[in-house]
Amino acid sequence: MECYFLAPLRVKLAQPFSTAYSSSAYLQRRGSCVRWRSGSGGAAHCQKMFVPGFGEGSPEAKAARSLQDFFTFVAVKIVLAQLESYNPEAHAELTEFVDRNSLNDGDKFCRALMRESPRHKGLALRILEVRSAYTKRDFEWDNLEKLARKMVDESNTRLMREYVLETSHLDNED
Amino acid sequence: MECYFLAPLRVKLAQPFSTAYSSSAYLQRRGSCVRWRSGSGGAAHCQKMFVPGFGEGSPEAKAARSLQDFFTFVAVKIVLAQLESYNPEAHAELTEFVDRNSLNDGDKFCRALMRESPRHKGLALRILEVRSAYTKRDFEWDNLEKLARKMVDESNTRLMREYVLETSHLDNED
Repeated sequence: MECYFLAPLRVKLAQPFSTAYSSSAYLQRRGSCVRWRSGSGGAAHCQKMFVPGFGEGSPEAKAARSLQDFFTFVAVKIVLAQLESYNPEAHAELTEFVDRNSLNDGDKFCRALMRESPRHKGLALRILEVRSAYTKRDFEWDNLEKLARKMVDESNTRLMREYVLETSHLDNED
Repeated sequence: MECYFLAPLRVKLAQPFSTAYSSSAYLQRRGSCVRWRSGSGGAAHCQKMFVPGFGEGSPEAKAARSLQDFFTFVAVKIVLAQLESYNPEAHAELTEFVDRNSLNDGDKFCRALMRESPRHKGLALRILEVRSAYTKRDFEWDNLEKLARKMVDESNTRLMREYVLETSHLDNED
C-alpha cells in the first residue's frame, strides 16, 4: 500500500494491518475527535469517519506538509520566471542548481541552495519569501476545495459509467 | 527539476526552460489572471504572482488532483478500519488487493478493484462513496489552510536560524 502523495507514510504502512487498525487505536482516535455536533435528541456525538494510521498527526497535517513542498516548487518557478527577464545570470545559476537537486523535499532543497554560494543564498531567501507570500496571499484555497470536490464527483461518475458500459457490452455479446 | 507531489509535471518540466518561461507564455498567463483589485488610484491591476508552466491548468487544479489521490488513499484506510470488526473476510480480501496494487493513482486503483470480482466491485463502490463523503464533510479545509501557513512560516524561520547558527559557528572558529 503506497501513495506518492505522502512519502513518509510508506514506512508507517509497513506495519501489519492488525496493529494499524487495532480496536485500542480506534478508540484512542475516536476519543480525540474534535468535531462534535448536536443530534436531534440533543445529545452531542462525533459524526466524523475514523481515519486510522496517521499516528500523532492528522490527514490535514499530512496534506499540509505535502502542500508545503508543492509551494516551494511553485516558488522556484515564480522566481525563475521573475529572474529570466531582469537577471539572466542568476536565472542560469538557479536553473543549473534545480537540474542537479530534487525538489521533492522543499526544505532540503532550500537548505542546500543556501549553502551553495553567497549568491545562491540570496536566491534561497527569495524563494522562502515567495513561498510564504504565495501561501498566504496568492493560492486560492476556496478554489482548491471547490475543484477537489468537483473532481471527486466527476471521477466517481466516470468510473461507474465506464464499468457499466463495459459490462453491458459483455452482456450483449453473450 | 522534479516534485513527487505532482507526477505528471515531471514530463512538462523536461522541456527547456527557455520554452517554459517564454515571454509569450508569460503574457498569456497574465492575461488569464482572474483576481483583480482596485489600486489606490482607482485603476484595477492584477497583484498575483505569475506562476508559469501549468499549461491550461492552475496550481490549484494540480493540487486538487493530488488531493483526490490522497482522499482515495484515506478512503481505503477508512473502509479497511470499518471492515476489520464486522467483515474480516472482506477486510482480508481488500488488504491483499492493496498489497498488490499501488494507490499512487486513486482512479486506476478503483478501476482495477471494480474489475477484480463482484465482491471487490462492492468494495470499490464503497471506497468511491467514502472518498466523496470524506471530501465534502469530514476533511477540515480551514484547518488545512491554517496548518499549511503555519508550517511554511515555521520552516522559513527554522531554515534561516540553522543557517545563521552554522555560519556564526564558522566565524567564531576563524
